[in-house]
Amino acid sequence: MLEQRIRNVALRSRVCTADEVQSWIQNGMTIAVSGFTKSGDAKATLQALARRKDKTGEPIKINLLSGASLGETDGILASRGLLGMRLPFQSDPDLRKSINLGEISYIDQHLSETAEWIRSGWLGDIDFAIIEATAITENGGIIPTTSVGNSPIFVEKAKRVIVEINLSLPLELEGVHDIYLPTARPNRQPIPLVNVRDRIGTTYIPCPPDKIAAVILTTAQDTPSNVSAPDAETAAMAGHILEFLSHEVNRGRLPKNIGPLQSGIGSVANAVLSGLVQGPFHDLEIYTEVMQDAAFELLDAGKVRFASSCSFTLSQAMRRHVLSRLGEYREKVVLRPQEISNHPEIVRRLGVIAINGALEVDLYGNVNSTHVSGTHMMNGVGGSGDFARNAALSIFVTKSTAKDGRISSVIPFVTHVDHPEHDVDVIVTERGIADLRGLAPRQRARAIIDHIAHPDYQDALRDYVRHAESHSGNTPHALDEAFGWHLRLQQQGDMRTMPSPVRAVN
Amino acid sequence: MLEQRIRNVALRSRVCTADEVQSWIQNGMTIAVSGFTKSGDAKATLQALARRKDKTGEPIKINLLSGASLGETDGILASRGLLGMRLPFQSDPDLRKSINLGEISYIDQHLSETAEWIRSGWLGDIDFAIIEATAITENGGIIPTTSVGNSPIFVEKAKRVIVEINLSLPLELEGVHDIYLPTARPNRQPIPLVNVRDRIGTTYIPCPPDKIAAVILTTAQDTPSNVSAPDAETAAMAGHILEFLSHEVNRGRLPKNIGPLQSGIGSVANAVLSGLVQGPFHDLEIYTEVMQDAAFELLDAGKVRFASSCSFTLSQAMRRHVLSRLGEYREKVVLRPQEISNHPEIVRRLGVIAINGALEVDLYGNVNSTHVSGTHMMNGVGGSGDFARNAALSIFVTKSTAKDGRISSVIPFVTHVDHPEHDVDVIVTERGIADLRGLAPRQRARAIIDHIAHPDYQDALRDYVRHAESHSGNTPHALDEAFGWHLRLQQQGDMRTMPSPVRAVN
Ligand SMILES: CC(C)(COP(=O)(O)OP(=O)(O)OC[C@H]1O[C@@H](n2cnc3c(N)ncnc32)[C@H](O)[C@@H]1OP(=O)(O)O)[C@@H](O)C(=O)NCCC(=O)NCCS
Ligand SMILES: CC(C)(COP(=O)(O)OP(=O)(O)OC[C@H]1O[C@@H](n2cnc3c(N)ncnc32)[C@H](O)[C@@H]1OP(=O)(O)O)[C@@H](O)C(=O)NCCC(=O)NCCS
Repeated sequence: MLEQRIRNVALRSRVCTADEVQSWIQNGMTIAVSGFTKSGDAKATLQALARRKDKTGEPIKINLLSGASLGETDGILASRGLLGMRLPFQSDPDLRKSINLGEISYIDQHLSETAEWIRSGWLGDIDFAIIEATAITENGGIIPTTSVGNSPIFVEKAKRVIVEINLSLPLELEGVHDIYLPTARPNRQPIPLVNVRDRIGTTYIPCPPDKIAAVILTTAQDTPSNVSAPDAETAAMAGHILEFLSHEVNRGRLPKNIGPLQSGIGSVANAVLSGLVQGPFHDLEIYTEVMQDAAFELLDAGKVRFASSCSFTLSQAMRRHVLSRLGEYREKVVLRPQEISNHPEIVRRLGVIAINGALEVDLYGNVNSTHVSGTHMMNGVGGSGDFARNAALSIFVTKSTAKDGRISSVIPFVTHVDHPEHDVDVIVTERGIADLRGLAPRQRARAIIDHIAHPDYQDALRDYVRHAESHSGNTPHALDEAFGWHLRLQQQGDMRTMPSPVRAVN
Repeated sequence: MLEQRIRNVALRSRVCTADEVQSWIQNGMTIAVSGFTKSGDAKATLQALARRKDKTGEPIKINLLSGASLGETDGILASRGLLGMRLPFQSDPDLRKSINLGEISYIDQHLSETAEWIRSGWLGDIDFAIIEATAITENGGIIPTTSVGNSPIFVEKAKRVIVEINLSLPLELEGVHDIYLPTARPNRQPIPLVNVRDRIGTTYIPCPPDKIAAVILTTAQDTPSNVSAPDAETAAMAGHILEFLSHEVNRGRLPKNIGPLQSGIGSVANAVLSGLVQGPFHDLEIYTEVMQDAAFELLDAGKVRFASSCSFTLSQAMRRHVLSRLGEYREKVVLRPQEISNHPEIVRRLGVIAINGALEVDLYGNVNSTHVSGTHMMNGVGGSGDFARNAALSIFVTKSTAKDGRISSVIPFVTHVDHPEHDVDVIVTERGIADLRGLAPRQRARAIIDHIAHPDYQDALRDYVRHAESHSGNTPHALDEAFGWHLRLQQQGDMRTMPSPVRAVN
């Protein structure tokens, strides 16, 4: 068994326990770990570090880099005050809380960019890369597990590498990955990927065996994804998107199979993708950074012929299903580094159709995906910017209201901009679709109010526009009222204008 | 003479006057013209159309597409109400006025994207492409003049093409251009450009001779660029950038020749580039969308070894100088379509150092390049987003105040976001430099206030931060005060808090 998992003989003598290895981690170190949206993250060493902190109470903080969010480890570290700096993405309630209290320096980043930052030396030295692996090859090559993330650049740049071999994962994962990194500049060559299914690299992360300081054996399980099931509203959104895409195909503005699909994280994006199972499209392709359950539903339904991704982020049931059928999926699925899955060069070349979630959108099509009320970080921008900016068609999805209707997701002025109007072609809510292509700002405002805003808020939005347009401007605004809706929410817990108590008495 | 200018014999019989040709233009048509930041724009036909409008007063409006801003033609058309829709960039006072009154539908767009929109059919049919040319080759190929812009895609997709041969321009322009367009999707291939100096296309825009409906002979002159001269403040900014870049080179984080430089339009970006003439760098390369005077100053000073651009946008004196020495410059300069000069694939591959102008920046590094007070369009986003998002290093420059100090360019919350914090690495004012790389939002606010804000506004910015941080959040804000500075400007003509008259009396 171990021979298959650690094929390089010399490395078998470097098997250690996580408790031994965590002791190498010192205050102020920069640690880079595998893991992308809770999938394939190195869990053993960091959780052992948390146990040490519980025991010794010593004041130790690390800078933690990853592919994207880790599973429960993010919360375990945050709640113990172990994180000084964290990048580039997270989605854990405890970590989020510390970030929003200003206790952790959180750097939100386009997910294709972290590798470039590391290559440029902007993040300083990486003391350890800790990588979850299926196996190590004869020559030290590290075969990742259910995500690739930033592991290849971490392994290349870290001073030392720790490999956590997860024995609970099938060896059939070998062959799923395609590891390619752009060469350093200058004289970087084009990335030779021209089809979703192209394999351009190796099935393992190259690593000189001497760089591997320790190998840990583990069976720790990924934290399962907990996206909520599709509901009537997400079904309606999926319906609008299907109708829109069919229309575009009929007009000859999209290829018959639409073009490679990207779908963001979150319940809404997953539900919308899931809606394609019922749709008229065949031979679909997926070029995305994370495959949630819906992507495998589409594969199983024979709708998708190939999927390229950077991670599998699945519910417990779907994960079991996928891991037990890797032999089949290996012909139809590839996992790539996030620098490639999200690369502007490739997204633009392939003509990806991007579908990402928004927290709120404004009258002119600007999108906030990250900051609740402009201040509180939800998850991070993730790869949405990599895709939305470079996609052939950039769609954003959001329910028209949140918190039982108390919040309108369509508001006069977004409190944080992750995606400027220029990057937003189409917005979809359960109410309908606003096709913003070719519309000037004033026309966009009308399309957005008429087609996607919730009826409870349409009149108030029209009022705002009327008032704003009386001031003129290409993009009319009344700055004194622009955040009025959010202030009302802060003050009365509801964005809807309510009759004031005094007037109610009269 | 005419034999050299119209080498295809059949086309010589299609020479017409602009007044004849303009009569083909009908209400509601979509017209696509050459021209990029006032350079190489087709002037004759459109100005003849304006004369017709003056004579007949008929209600005619066109949709006008271009590379970027035209010269005086933009204002001539706008002031006569001839424009229904305009994209993707402009910089004319009269056109700007009509846009801000909501009279013209103005679509602001990343300049690399217009070609993709046209290819996708999103902008409908193009009735005429009108292209200023140096000459037409034997096979109908159109040799552009001092810009390439979107002319290649316009010629490819328009129903008919009108060529305006400008006899005042030297035939030595032949050989300066390199025309390459990405192939259609699917199966688009990598763009084979790996060095700034690579030539990957033809020296002319391919065009079947039959598509050329008319050839006009003209000697109309480009509207000269009127960037203001460097001053003490821009000199200080250039100094800060030089110091910063030297430091990065010394730390081995940039190559010795920095990497290919992009510099945006505007007085400040030009002045900053001009400052490199005094700098320690040699063998510089330029990969940009517009070469202003400073780029040629650097070539003449022997500092730049090669420059790739999409247009020359020059003062009258520099234009004369450049046109008289094309034989020499042809070895060191290439003009490309804007889809290539600004292409995310290439900008990222080459590791461009981008320097773009901002109207205002906020405490967290978000940049507004387009909308004064969030409403009034200045020029447009231009290529700044193509470069800032994909650059190896994205620098924004702005003076710390505008309008004699009455406006702070560093404010709590930008009134429009063109470049989200994620796309902004470094901000420079005459006061200094804020290096935002690796900083979390709260740290960014401190760097920005301490290093680049004007002293008149530093205390007020610190007050805002203190107040905002009392509400917590990853990106602290006080939404009730976020636009307070702009409202103060609207009300009292000055962003500085002034003692209220009442209190002043006490
Ligand atoms: C924006 C994003 C958070 C939406 O997530 P989602 O799961 O699809 O959407 P939901 O409607 O379920 O909203 C998630 C939460 O935000 C809340 N919310 C949604 N809109 C809100 C708004 N305008 N104001 C306040 N809260 C809001 C919801 O109530 C819900 O809260 P809960 O968790 O307490 O129930 C998610 O898409 C995201 O993180 N995007 C950024 C990263 C990204 O796009 N990556 C793409 C490539 S991976
Ligand atoms: C942002 C931009 C307008 C700055 O232009 P610039 O010429 O370098 O800067 P200036 O400081 O001279 O400012 C230009 C005008 O804006 C005004 N201005 C600057 N900051 C301002 C602010 N915060 N509020 C109001 N007005 C402001 C100036 O007073 C000046 O007005 P004037 O023309 O009446 O004198 C310019 O860089 C631009 O259009 N950028 C977007 C396009 C782009 O970046 N393209 C890049 C690739 S081409």
